[in-house]
Amino acid sequence: MAGRTFLYAQSGGVTPVINATAAALIRTARASGDRVLAARNGILGVLEEHLVDTASLTDADLDALGHTPGGVFGSCRYKLKGLEENRREYERLIEVFRAHKVDCFFYNGGNDSADTALKVSGLGEIMDYPIQCIGVPKTIDNDLAVTDNCPGFGSVAKYVAVSILEASLDVMSMSSTSTKVFILEVMGRHAGWIAAAGGLAARAPGDPPQIILFPEIPFDEERFCAAVRQSVERHGYCSVVVSEGLRNADGEFVAAAASRDAFGHHQLGGVAPAVANVVKRELGYKYHWAVSDYLQRSARHIASATDVEQAEAVGQAAVTLAHSGHSGVMPVIRRISDAPYEWEIATAELDQIANHEKKMPREYISEDGFAITEAARRYLAPLIHGESFPPFGADGLPEYLRPELTELDPLLPEFRV
Amino acid sequence: MAGRTFLYAQSGGVTPVINATAAALIRTARASGDRVLAARNGILGVLEEHLVDTASLTDADLDALGHTPGGVFGSCRYKLKGLEENRREYERLIEVFRAHKVDCFFYNGGNDSADTALKVSGLGEIMDYPIQCIGVPKTIDNDLAVTDNCPGFGSVAKYVAVSILEASLDVMSMSSTSTKVFILEVMGRHAGWIAAAGGLAARAPGDPPQIILFPEIPFDEERFCAAVRQSVERHGYCSVVVSEGLRNADGEFVAAAASRDAFGHHQLGGVAPAVANVVKRELGYKYHWAVSDYLQRSARHIASATDVEQAEAVGQAAVTLAHSGHSGVMPVIRRISDAPYEWEIATAELDQIANHEKKMPREYISEDGFAITEAARRYLAPLIHGESFPPFGADGLPEYLRPELTELDPLLPEFRV
Repeated sequence: MAGRTFLYAQSGGVTPVINATAAALIRTARASGDRVLAARNGILGVLEEHLVDTASLTDADLDALGHTPGGVFGSCRYKLKGLEENRREYERLIEVFRAHKVDCFFYNGGNDSADTALKVSGLGEIMDYPIQCIGVPKTIDNDLAVTDNCPGFGSVAKYVAVSILEASLDVMSMSSTSTKVFILEVMGRHAGWIAAAGGLAARAPGDPPQIILFPEIPFDEERFCAAVRQSVERHGYCSVVVSEGLRNADGEFVAAAASRDAFGHHQLGGVAPAVANVVKRELGYKYHWAVSDYLQRSARHIASATDVEQAEAVGQAAVTLAHSGHSGVMPVIRRISDAPYEWEIATAELDQIANHEKKMPREYISEDGFAITEAARRYLAPLIHGESFPPFGADGLPEYLRPELTELDPLLPEFRV
Repeated sequence: MAGRTFLYAQSGGVTPVINATAAALIRTARASGDRVLAARNGILGVLEEHLVDTASLTDADLDALGHTPGGVFGSCRYKLKGLEENRREYERLIEVFRAHKVDCFFYNGGNDSADTALKVSGLGEIMDYPIQCIGVPKTIDNDLAVTDNCPGFGSVAKYVAVSILEASLDVMSMSSTSTKVFILEVMGRHAGWIAAAGGLAARAPGDPPQIILFPEIPFDEERFCAAVRQSVERHGYCSVVVSEGLRNADGEFVAAAASRDAFGHHQLGGVAPAVANVVKRELGYKYHWAVSDYLQRSARHIASATDVEQAEAVGQAAVTLAHSGHSGVMPVIRRISDAPYEWEIATAELDQIANHEKKMPREYISEDGFAITEAARRYLAPLIHGESFPPFGADGLPEYLRPELTELDPLLPEFRV
């Protein structure tokens, strides 16, 4: 069936490669003669009927979109409540689909978005409007169930591994008379996948980072200080990667301040200075710390080629799933082998993914809790393989796309969330 | 005169390209049949006779060194006192030069190192040992006098411009329901050169970063909050670059905590969370902040090709100056034209550079104090031109050199600083 109308939206925290997924999805659909609308700011744009027609993007725009970080259509943190509590929003979704003749909705996001996509996929039957819904995976947190890894994670992993390698060469140079301890804070609320990626920089015994602080391992000041001291005595310096989700033995976040976002998640930041204070107080070493925050998840300039390839593959596969009539599913990555690294796209049911969280296996963390194991390295290494530099302009900056997106005229009365 | 013996050392905070200078200097000297020794940890390694013979570095090593961040021989923060106060150290320097038949000392550093180099250049006459001394410029702070710009700065400038561009695309995507303000803290104790580089990302009116907070402009909370609110109301978000050296109207650093390093400089960090707190308290917007710290000055993976070329040029020129019998001088960069950008290497007297500090001209900062002017853009733009990606290995990481450096057997009794 050709000439279909698809609606695509981006959800949750964006990644360096979510636009690569969008570009691949649009290009694949376009090649089949399908129309692709996109919602501004995720599901909110559907509810409020802020839609754009991606036909305005030229083929050159799609090429540029494929190497542009952020979420070009805007994303949102907004979780639909259950149908019973919130029939109004579900009815509105159907109205918008019906008004714009949308027959398949693609929701590109993580756990919470998979939950939204699952709910939407159940609407057709309940509300008597034939709508397919397909989740498309994306999250730097790498915590989606079923899929071997998540598009977005590989690039963040590469950024973290490269950054701690580079900063460690710096502190190594300075340690005789100045900074002896460097601490890099990385994202990862509940799982240490991103922090673990820092361990890829440690290719030989004694290599930096000498210490990784995982959210899975309660922070023990005394053991940490002993490890820092040992590294400084052996190597002259100590390089530390710490996850924003680091907790103490009581389960409290080590980061000084915590507030909550719209999903009820803690919004963290500032565990690096907290850990630096421990170093200062207990050991007296001169330290430096960095918090990479959004830089790590927008650094398209140092994206993993493997990640870009997979981000594009899930976008293409989503269209294929739509064409073959699937709903309530998500294209996922299945690993065939570690070395040589081989993978393929498989199909997973959304109810196996929505609201599940893939934890990092304990066997990926060394016995002392400060490093990754060989099993973790086998898993992680292929995900940062290859470079995918964006083109740079004469002004020395990457040529990222910032298209003018004109919204379609609304066909329905205004609706406020 | 061929077959000379040179001694090279690195000083102060390292840069992404100081090793490119080292590699070029060693290669140029080697081509002339000169021997190049290197001191571990700057002038300290001279005093304590921790020297290596760079002959152990193969040509392939020198190629790799040319794209490796950090300071491969180790750096130091150590400033020689005046001759009157500290004759012991000066005598020791001469003893070490004499023992190893060193006839020219190259000191690769910033302001303080130029002062050390100047003092050493005066030793020959006073202590009756013929020693040339040549300063070689390096500093990410871009605050050396005479030279148009400093090797190291262009790459940091590129990192900052690329990073704020990328992170702004991220916050732009999230701003409808989540983060509205993003704050990136960058280095620059006393001068806003690095913060100014963030302004290169703003190529059209309204582009991010909407606000730059310079150390030259006292922080005015009220005006800042008004500017943030205006940006959020116009664009939906606000992207901020803040210099670690930001001060309030009383001249106090805005960063919460400040301690002192060996040169008596304040060691800063944490102005981003301080500014974020103002946003939270006065405006209530959701914010994110990043502190790039060492990442910005070790990010060789995103180095400026112009910067790499200039770093190599000053290394080559230093050897030429040595061959032509100069002492007490530094090869500097002289700009011939902005567009097309043309430059050449000139020679400056060290006494014009030592302990001077090049401030950023007020006309580089917009009248409202939150942006750069066209004059600043003309100056800065060529410095981030071109990419110089390091080679990456099959493991997805840059192939940085970490050579085993074997120290020469000491010829003199032990000396402790």
